[in-house]
Amino acid sequence: MSITLDLNSDLGEGFGVWQLGDDLALLKIVTSANVACGFHGGDPTIMRRVCAEAVRRDVSVGAHVGYRDLAGFGRRAMDIEPDRLADDVLYQLAALDGIARAEGGRVRYVKPHGALYNRTVTDQAQAAAVVAAVAAYDPGLPILGLPGSQLLRQAEEAGLTAEREAFADRGYRPDGSLAKRGSPGALVTDPAEVAERCVRMATTGRVTAVDGSSVTVNPRSLCVHGDTPGAVELARQVRGALQDAGVRLAAFS
Amino acid sequence: MSITLDLNSDLGEGFGVWQLGDDLALLKIVTSANVACGFHGGDPTIMRRVCAEAVRRDVSVGAHVGYRDLAGFGRRAMDIEPDRLADDVLYQLAALDGIARAEGGRVRYVKPHGALYNRTVTDQAQAAAVVAAVAAYDPGLPILGLPGSQLLRQAEEAGLTAEREAFADRGYRPDGSLAKRGSPGALVTDPAEVAERCVRMATTGRVTAVDGSSVTVNPRSLCVHGDTPGAVELARQVRGALQDAGVRLAAFS
Amino acid sequence: MSITLDLNSDLGEGFGVWQLGDDLALLKIVTSANVACGFHGGDPTIMRRVCAEAVRRDVSVGAHVGYRDLAGFGRRAMDIEPDRLADDVLYQLAALDGIARAEGGRVRYVKPHGALYNRTVTDQAQAAAVVAAVAAYDPGLPILGLPGSQLLRQAEEAGLTAEREAFADRGYRPDGSLAKRGSPGALVTDPAEVAERCVRMATTGRVTAVDGSSVTVNPRSLCVHGDTPGAVELARQVRGALQDAGVRLAAFS
Amino acid sequence: MSITLDLNSDLGEGFGVWQLGDDLALLKIVTSANVACGFHGGDPTIMRRVCAEAVRRDVSVGAHVGYRDLAGFGRRAMDIEPDRLADDVLYQLAALDGIARAEGGRVRYVKPHGALYNRTVTDQAQAAAVVAAVAAYDPGLPILGLPGSQLLRQAEEAGLTAEREAFADRGYRPDGSLAKRGSPGALVTDPAEVAERCVRMATTGRVTAVDGSSVTVNPRSLCVHGDTPGAVELARQVRGALQDAGVRLAAFS
Repeated sequence: MSITLDLNSDLGEGFGVWQLGDDLALLKIVTSANVACGFHGGDPTIMRRVCAEAVRRDVSVGAHVGYRDLAGFGRRAMDIEPDRLADDVLYQLAALDGIARAEGGRVRYVKPHGALYNRTVTDQAQAAAVVAAVAAYDPGLPILGLPGSQLLRQAEEAGLTAEREAFADRGYRPDGSLAKRGSPGALVTDPAEVAERCVRMATTGRVTAVDGSSVTVNPRSLCVHGDTPGAVELARQVRGALQDAGVRLAAFS
Repeated sequence: MSITLDLNSDLGEGFGVWQLGDDLALLKIVTSANVACGFHGGDPTIMRRVCAEAVRRDVSVGAHVGYRDLAGFGRRAMDIEPDRLADDVLYQLAALDGIARAEGGRVRYVKPHGALYNRTVTDQAQAAAVVAAVAAYDPGLPILGLPGSQLLRQAEEAGLTAEREAFADRGYRPDGSLAKRGSPGALVTDPAEVAERCVRMATTGRVTAVDGSSVTVNPRSLCVHGDTPGAVELARQVRGALQDAGVRLAAFS
Repeated sequence: MSITLDLNSDLGEGFGVWQLGDDLALLKIVTSANVACGFHGGDPTIMRRVCAEAVRRDVSVGAHVGYRDLAGFGRRAMDIEPDRLADDVLYQLAALDGIARAEGGRVRYVKPHGALYNRTVTDQAQAAAVVAAVAAYDPGLPILGLPGSQLLRQAEEAGLTAEREAFADRGYRPDGSLAKRGSPGALVTDPAEVAERCVRMATTGRVTAVDGSSVTVNPRSLCVHGDTPGAVELARQVRGALQDAGVRLAAFS
Repeated sequence: MSITLDLNSDLGEGFGVWQLGDDLALLKIVTSANVACGFHGGDPTIMRRVCAEAVRRDVSVGAHVGYRDLAGFGRRAMDIEPDRLADDVLYQLAALDGIARAEGGRVRYVKPHGALYNRTVTDQAQAAAVVAAVAAYDPGLPILGLPGSQLLRQAEEAGLTAEREAFADRGYRPDGSLAKRGSPGALVTDPAEVAERCVRMATTGRVTAVDGSSVTVNPRSLCVHGDTPGAVELARQVRGALQDAGVRLAAFS
């Protein structure tokens, strides 16, 4: 019996003259690309370039929607009215889908970025707003998120497909939430340990939390980061370790 | 034999808390709404509200694409690289179309805004960029512009439908170009005269230029402005005068 | 014995082509102008125009600093890092002061706008960040805020002058905080009642809360709003009622 | 007899999470830092960090003012109204000066960035607008620009100090203008040749143009670029070669 897993990463996060991460290198590794849509990063030209290459490499394109906050890269939670948030998400999703279609592909899933991702883990109204936007655009689009999050719960209640992801190098708390950045064990930095965790999550569905307990995550997709030095190499090792363990890598969407 | 004419106006030109023009009033008058797409004005919530009302009133929605210049309202010509301009136009067009579709409609044409409109009258590279974006998104979408402009020429060469518009209250030069704002006769302000000119353009295809000569414009659509005091009333008078003259008002797209 | 009170209002809140409120009319009424600095509203040209007129009319100019959020008009609370917030405030304050000086005046106080105002009522870290920015720029500048707020407390602890303001038309809770918008009594709309409340606050330092109890506010300045229809007329009535009651109107700074 | 020369470079050109160039490395090499002011790049936090380090290293801080165009990094000429341009420049200059003062320094000169730099070589109205802004803020501030440019001419006519700069690695046309990027000889890439040109410009005031003729540039400052790979090393070599040739390096302001 073979296990299939998706490998996703955030891409297209530059803006104008500014670059972030190595999009082309990561597109050779991942099976799904979360593409920034212009609100926290990404501009139309970067979006188009990433979509073109993703289509060429048969990498699945996802809308990485975020708060309108270029200066903060979408990493600052905002008390935005849910209705306005839904409109912002719809706008970003549609813009990326149009660009993807112009390049012969299309958007195949939605994943919130940064503070919006974190906020919609627990904020029901903002989670529902993201879901409403996706449903209004195309109810066939899956939403990728944290297991147990309000986002996935709202998606399911709205009849959308909710896909579970786990993080390759982030520490988990016993309840399945992510350890706060800066807290002990929040980031796993040893490449061998990251790879081993990923294989374990893929094959057993479980990961060791920061307190040593075992947490069920059952990921359909694993998120590898691309914006730090060494990120590409780490992603490559994760991919290699998963393949060595007999895990088939394929987009979930 | 009956004459059919479209009446278009720029709508959704507010941003956030700021409003511009009376969208709802104009949607009762025009047959086509050029909806701002967020780069020079318009935000996702305004776009959605205008699209919803346009769909409800069976007004045709057009993508009013502009330079990325909120501070200048897209009224300042920019030496943007054609490839980047094409991506910017594609992004705006796709975003609005997605929003329109979420409201049960869709974008039916494209018309550049402000400085982009003026620049693409003569700038072949920027005109071709706008056309390339529309062709990449949907080659079935018509482009609305000034007769004789590079924009319409490039559209035709690319196999797109080029639609001719005339301006209800703008002065024309003998060569069919618009008189520069601030020059004598650049703006026709007397409502009766505006209405009379519109009826003449609709029925004869011609308009009297600032030097008294007669210019052929043959409009498929007439543009009425919505952002000045008295604009709504003027638009209403134009509509009434055209109907009194037996002109049938209907969207061209 | 005469009572002196300042009358402040938010001004210069347009952006580019968009206008908000009637700046020139309000500058004839108030003694202090909270001028938007470009992050939530206001652009350099509007800022300069308001400063020029304020200087001409001897109205005191204050820096109305806000979150970087044009789309939300600074009305959405943001979890911004305090250090970055301090830098954002310093930038806005310095920009406005430079413009005011070019027009023969200078910034005489600082008052946060919108969500930053509300957040710094209770958020100690963000309040301290605002105070740190003002102290770094000019420790002689007073900060205008809500009595009892963290903002004023932090200002005092840092050795800055903290000035207390009250709101002409907002409902108060028994603890001196503002009633949430939308809750009963949150907004006083009857002009006569607003004027009467203002006179009472000026002469007794107290206001009747939404539950009928009496709250001490002791304002050094009264805030009148300028961005709603009828706002100018209401401000004029407040000014008249205060003068009729023998209150001297003068800038606090 | 000793020759004194300034070495300037563009710094602080990142935005939010995005970095550009190696500010700290360049601050060890140059004597003047052209600091981006937030309109084409730079944010308040980056501005403050660069100012703090510049003050610490006794590097002169200049306001690198640009068009409001983050997406285009201020490299796209804009037909902005001169009055609005002046206000935009004043705003940026004042913001940076306030930040520099908070760090114990102050802005000591102004140099336009990118497309504004190029445009004001020949555009009299935009050049005059930049000069007017500087004069309104502090007529004692010198303007750094291209010899023979409208910018320096307007500065002199307004009674401001005009300082001449030359470019370390850019090709010159016989008339002293810069060779268009992409044209033959537009960029000198050989480090030894760049260093040799710089020494020649410093000691003779002349440089060899792309056609082999000799052009007088008489620079008070030499501009070294910091945003390309190898830029820091090249700047270091230029500095070394100048010092070896007995040129004293010191800020002009």
